[in-house]
Amino acid sequence: MAPAIEVVALDADDTLWHSEVYFERTQRRFKELIGRYVDPDQVDIDAALVDVEHRNLPVYGYGIKGFTLSMVEAAIEITDGAIGVDELAQILASGRAMLDHPVDLLDGVDDTITELTAAGYRLILVTKGDLHHQEHKILASGIGDRFERLEIVAEKDPETYGRVIASMGVEPAAFCMVGNSVRSDVLPVLELGGHAVHIPYHVTWAHEHVEHDGTVPTLASITELPAWLAGAATA
Amino acid sequence: MAPAIEVVALDADDTLWHSEVYFERTQRRFKELIGRYVDPDQVDIDAALVDVEHRNLPVYGYGIKGFTLSMVEAAIEITDGAIGVDELAQILASGRAMLDHPVDLLDGVDDTITELTAAGYRLILVTKGDLHHQEHKILASGIGDRFERLEIVAEKDPETYGRVIASMGVEPAAFCMVGNSVRSDVLPVLELGGHAVHIPYHVTWAHEHVEHDGTVPTLASITELPAWLAGAATA
Repeated sequence: MAPAIEVVALDADDTLWHSEVYFERTQRRFKELIGRYVDPDQVDIDAALVDVEHRNLPVYGYGIKGFTLSMVEAAIEITDGAIGVDELAQILASGRAMLDHPVDLLDGVDDTITELTAAGYRLILVTKGDLHHQEHKILASGIGDRFERLEIVAEKDPETYGRVIASMGVEPAAFCMVGNSVRSDVLPVLELGGHAVHIPYHVTWAHEHVEHDGTVPTLASITELPAWLAGAATA
Repeated sequence: MAPAIEVVALDADDTLWHSEVYFERTQRRFKELIGRYVDPDQVDIDAALVDVEHRNLPVYGYGIKGFTLSMVEAAIEITDGAIGVDELAQILASGRAMLDHPVDLLDGVDDTITELTAAGYRLILVTKGDLHHQEHKILASGIGDRFERLEIVAEKDPETYGRVIASMGVEPAAFCMVGNSVRSDVLPVLELGGHAVHIPYHVTWAHEHVEHDGTVPTLASITELPAWLAGAATA
């Protein structure tokens, strides 16, 4: 018999609290500013920004600071240098506003964490992104102390998960990762023989899109997680 | 008798490899670009940049991405928006060049680490800054696998060190931190009852300057560390 799930690891951005929705809002503002210089019917501003973001990912990594730098660079590039310094200052300010934004927990998160703790699961948080900003958000969320461990990682790949699982002292089969990204939260953990659950958020960053065969365990809301875990234990 | 030092924790930037010297070089280039718009005899460009950096530290944290964003912001601010988009693009590029720069180990680092390992110390690396960039530098340094653990932290305060020391399973008196910043590497560890050694780098970031009473153990080079540790054990 497979061991029961002992450790439940939760992703943070767009799993515990809203995140991508702020990127989307900022990107709409970006499009508006750039639209003063180029015709949005002629130039796909969104696609051009995504290109710059992807190009910069190996150098900047994840997070809002890198995104802001990419917006400034893309603004100069897309407008061929015609963008005004005033608009660039507004782009800087919109990036900072994202960093300053209060943390909004998703519906049901607080109660679900209480329920999981009561059920005896060991909870950890595994998130990627900017160390400083993630620590700030965990603190601001008010739920940081509900987790046995907070892991802020540079990349969510099998190697990273292997290290995290080993450090918890359990077998992969006793570990379950829960998050909104099939690419980052689900596939690498299944590859290791662990459990993983996908809880989609209504917006997904282009970089996280991945094709998969549709057999990934998927829940509509984190509130369904305790029942799913209880079912997995007896499956 | 106090326990012998068992764990030696090393800072990375400007302790194992050069870092501040690249900030300084970039800052000279910044001054040159801004000098096209304002008279350096009238405006203290360095001080104005440091002001913006310090103002942004709570939001951006440490690292080159935040520094680059601060340079762009300071350039707009100091020139009252007169700076050209071309110069701003050059500032972005200079930030990226810092991120792309190869890792240069300081003299004697490789041999000293070999010596410390042979002497039986458990080595860890404790560095603050940008998670993605620090991981990249540790990998590029070629010495990452010589450490039992790599700790990239958001802030080097007594709380962080307390957590690191506890996670190594030793008493503070068996722990010694080594680094180029009295403020970040030495004082918080001494406060906890641990050992700490200051190895000054020839350039210190303004933010790391701190007044102290001069009794901090100080070495001229990391190559003196094995002898100092051996001495501390019998002191």
